[in-house]
Amino acid sequence: MDDLFQAHAALLDAAVAASRRREFWSAFPEHPKAYPGSAPAEGQAAFEALKNRPFELARDEQDELRGCWVGEEVSPFGMRLGITYRSQAADDLVAAAQRAHAAWSEASVEQRVGVTLEILVRLNAASFLIAQAVEHTTGQASAMAFQAGGPHAQDRGLEAVAYAYAEMTRVPEAVRWEKPIGRSFIRLDKNFFVVPRGIGLIIGCATFPTWNSYPALFANLATGNAVIVKPHPAAILPLALTVKIGREVLAGQGFDPDVLQLAPDTTEAPLAKILATHAAIDIVDFTGSSAFGSWLRTNVTDKLLFTEEAGVNTIVIASTNAFSAMCQNIAFSLSLYSGQMCTAPQTIFVPASGISTDEGHKSFEAVAASIAGAIDALLSDPVRAGAVLGAIQSPETLTRIEAARTLGRVVRDSSALPLERARTATPLLISLDASEATPALEEWFGPIAFIVAVHDAEEGIARASAAARTKGAITAALYSTDEAQIARAIPSYARAGVALSVNLTGGIYVNQSAAFSDYHVTGANPAGNACLTDTAFVAGRFRVVCVRRPAAA
Amino acid sequence: MDDLFQAHAALLDAAVAASRRREFWSAFPEHPKAYPGSAPAEGQAAFEALKNRPFELARDEQDELRGCWVGEEVSPFGMRLGITYRSQAADDLVAAAQRAHAAWSEASVEQRVGVTLEILVRLNAASFLIAQAVEHTTGQASAMAFQAGGPHAQDRGLEAVAYAYAEMTRVPEAVRWEKPIGRSFIRLDKNFFVVPRGIGLIIGCATFPTWNSYPALFANLATGNAVIVKPHPAAILPLALTVKIGREVLAGQGFDPDVLQLAPDTTEAPLAKILATHAAIDIVDFTGSSAFGSWLRTNVTDKLLFTEEAGVNTIVIASTNAFSAMCQNIAFSLSLYSGQMCTAPQTIFVPASGISTDEGHKSFEAVAASIAGAIDALLSDPVRAGAVLGAIQSPETLTRIEAARTLGRVVRDSSALPLERARTATPLLISLDASEATPALEEWFGPIAFIVAVHDAEEGIARASAAARTKGAITAALYSTDEAQIARAIPSYARAGVALSVNLTGGIYVNQSAAFSDYHVTGANPAGNACLTDTAFVAGRFRVVCVRRPAAA
Repeated sequence: MDDLFQAHAALLDAAVAASRRREFWSAFPEHPKAYPGSAPAEGQAAFEALKNRPFELARDEQDELRGCWVGEEVSPFGMRLGITYRSQAADDLVAAAQRAHAAWSEASVEQRVGVTLEILVRLNAASFLIAQAVEHTTGQASAMAFQAGGPHAQDRGLEAVAYAYAEMTRVPEAVRWEKPIGRSFIRLDKNFFVVPRGIGLIIGCATFPTWNSYPALFANLATGNAVIVKPHPAAILPLALTVKIGREVLAGQGFDPDVLQLAPDTTEAPLAKILATHAAIDIVDFTGSSAFGSWLRTNVTDKLLFTEEAGVNTIVIASTNAFSAMCQNIAFSLSLYSGQMCTAPQTIFVPASGISTDEGHKSFEAVAASIAGAIDALLSDPVRAGAVLGAIQSPETLTRIEAARTLGRVVRDSSALPLERARTATPLLISLDASEATPALEEWFGPIAFIVAVHDAEEGIARASAAARTKGAITAALYSTDEAQIARAIPSYARAGVALSVNLTGGIYVNQSAAFSDYHVTGANPAGNACLTDTAFVAGRFRVVCVRRPAAA
Repeated sequence: MDDLFQAHAALLDAAVAASRRREFWSAFPEHPKAYPGSAPAEGQAAFEALKNRPFELARDEQDELRGCWVGEEVSPFGMRLGITYRSQAADDLVAAAQRAHAAWSEASVEQRVGVTLEILVRLNAASFLIAQAVEHTTGQASAMAFQAGGPHAQDRGLEAVAYAYAEMTRVPEAVRWEKPIGRSFIRLDKNFFVVPRGIGLIIGCATFPTWNSYPALFANLATGNAVIVKPHPAAILPLALTVKIGREVLAGQGFDPDVLQLAPDTTEAPLAKILATHAAIDIVDFTGSSAFGSWLRTNVTDKLLFTEEAGVNTIVIASTNAFSAMCQNIAFSLSLYSGQMCTAPQTIFVPASGISTDEGHKSFEAVAASIAGAIDALLSDPVRAGAVLGAIQSPETLTRIEAARTLGRVVRDSSALPLERARTATPLLISLDASEATPALEEWFGPIAFIVAVHDAEEGIARASAAARTKGAITAALYSTDEAQIARAIPSYARAGVALSVNLTGGIYVNQSAAFSDYHVTGANPAGNACLTDTAFVAGRFRVVCVRRPAAA
């Protein structure tokens, strides 16, 4: 067994410090140029080599278990991956996890944390391969697939390890307890043991399979739980690669690789409900739709349950002193990955009487037209359009765009990019009066946005925060030049449990959530009960047991 | 508004440090002599003045709301208290909590923590009154009622405040985030806001109404939640006094006292299920039976739920080099408060072939007889017997003793103390062969213990840890002179999530759980899902919301 903890101690120390300071920090470079020049081509070649064949996990044993081969991934850019994965029954997965868990749960905190850090470093080295896998399952454009699927996801995983390590080591291993009794003492020696919960299930999503799964995956491993990863049937490969690398590291350190298992399934024979309610599963982490999240919140009792669901992200435009930059910023936020981010804005409130700007008064219609124009400008170059929009992950999103078209006045219509085979759609922008705004207060996942005329900015803020409170929201944005108005608005958004971005322009967007600084989802509204990453996300994944005895004199 | 935070800053600092070190520390003296000489008599007089009249909370408004007067507390020592409490409908309690919560949730962390510290200090000053209330509802003898109901409970409350404060202040209030982009930076100013969940419900128990409720009560208040306290109908007064003092402090600092409300009910018209499943309740803390705990774990979905339930606490006697002291120690643990502690041992495993001791080999029968003899000796003086045993809280416990008598051979019979009116019972000790041990692996709450003959100590350890894992256990004890055996046993108990005490003799007992050092309940077996107090107990009671905006250049 290598001393992986010592090997990665500096990385861990820096991550723990960063998670406390919450200033900018990143362990894994987001710029492709920071990696060896050959890495992109090698990643591409490795991806090609995986296509049209069964996927091999790190140990043959898992492949040889009962089960069948599944896998129907088709790239939103058009290509059928042709990769199949060994699927197993829930009971077989659980039995293997239980066998593997015994030794893993008794490994030291340092051994387990060392293993997680080594997995993260190896994942980082595989970032270009994982980027290909993310691109051709989610439809993210290649730059985003690399950043969000690779280094940003790895940073989120590292953040969870840092929190877990800090929390586990916050408990002393051994203390002498000396209670004065009269002129004497009662003396006890106490040892505290970190005891993992057992088995954690992770249910992945189709749009950010690595970014949204890594926090739970690494928090569970670090705290000594066995992990079963159930990917979305449309995005298995990124997590299969992750599990494979994890199993290689585990096996290399003498652990049973079944500490970390893949549980691929199909839409026809889904495993998520079976596993989530299995008596032997102790922790469930889910990212996905509110419908399934709600099912889990109702049916998963007596387990730890962490959900990241969806909601109605809003923008309120009260006034601005940077009108063009604001419209460009919003246009980019609406266009990035075709609005398929859980952080993407959807519903924009603007006073019906218009707003005051550095370019003079702008009517409601002018604001709507300017945002539409900024989208057009952003997407005017087809190459840039492809790089911003990526492709549409699910065909259902195209159906949803069709339905949304009828809800109000089309300010900007959605259209496909001139790309063969790829499923694409530019943002649809619909204008509504306040009286017809009800549909805009439901989630319309994808490149669908509403601009709603409200009486004034205060009404917009009230509606935006109420929507967050009742429907859930992960992000909110506010543009205002009135500091008193901003100050009044902040408590409303805070009470609604939604992260607020104020007056963003330039190269930072409301959709972006940075590891070690931004909390992703607050857990305080229906958009999810968990937060990536706070202490509550890790603290319950293990327990502490005390053994005490009279101290030797 | 006073600066209560500053006033109690030294107390808080010491508590935070102690909760990290987990060595011996106590804020509130457990020895009555540490209090003013007049305090006991004043407490007694204050208690007498409360009897046979309606209980007045700190503000008339709550009393004037709709509702009826309830209260049927009868001291297990015989006296009817004759105190009535204003009962309100769940919806009225919730509405008042919501009104009060608005301002409380926006108070600063320091304001709220200052209020909780002031309440604790005032509760400490009222310890002798609260001791009377605890004694005459729970049946605890007066010394225990004072210590466990007063300073020990206050220490547990303070511990929760320390954890909550540490966790809330771990998040920086404001940071500058500077991300390098090429040769420039993106700079954001971020503010982080602590946002409480909302309303917490606390369901108290009949045996330790203050000790078991204070951690949740103070964790909730410190993290900015409104609190509704639903006492056990048989033990309302200790929590009514607590709520009254809390409301006085809140009102004195300009807060709506309905931040902290009492929800007394009756056995005939219980409020617990109604409140626990009320949509507006965000957090539920429960101490009590496994039956109701299980109901809560099944039916309370989509809320934070913390339970402290019950289980089968065991002792394994493998060998000892202090036979007499061991028997005395076990005798005291079985007798203290007539076994009505959730930490009291119940089932003792001893090898059928006997054990090796410093007094030579002792047969199974001799071990059983010696423990029985040690109980007899402890209780031979009626005054000391009363001071150790207290009274039996619930008549059902007497019925249970009757039933237990028939399960095996009576090694030591239970009997009443010669005290008029008081409901008392000395420990019943039943001997069983391993083959008939099944009943001993269920909980028999009260002064009921089983001594079970097993093949050898290893079987005892296996049965003890299996019982903890499957039935739940809060404590376990092991007596062994074999260090290798102890070392092998520890992982079994740790995996079973039960605190283990090894070779206790003298003035420290397996039942005892010290604030700031011992974790009470691990949350890792069916005896409860919560732990008093770890980070997981406080971290989810609030959430963090970020507000970010471009930094001024």
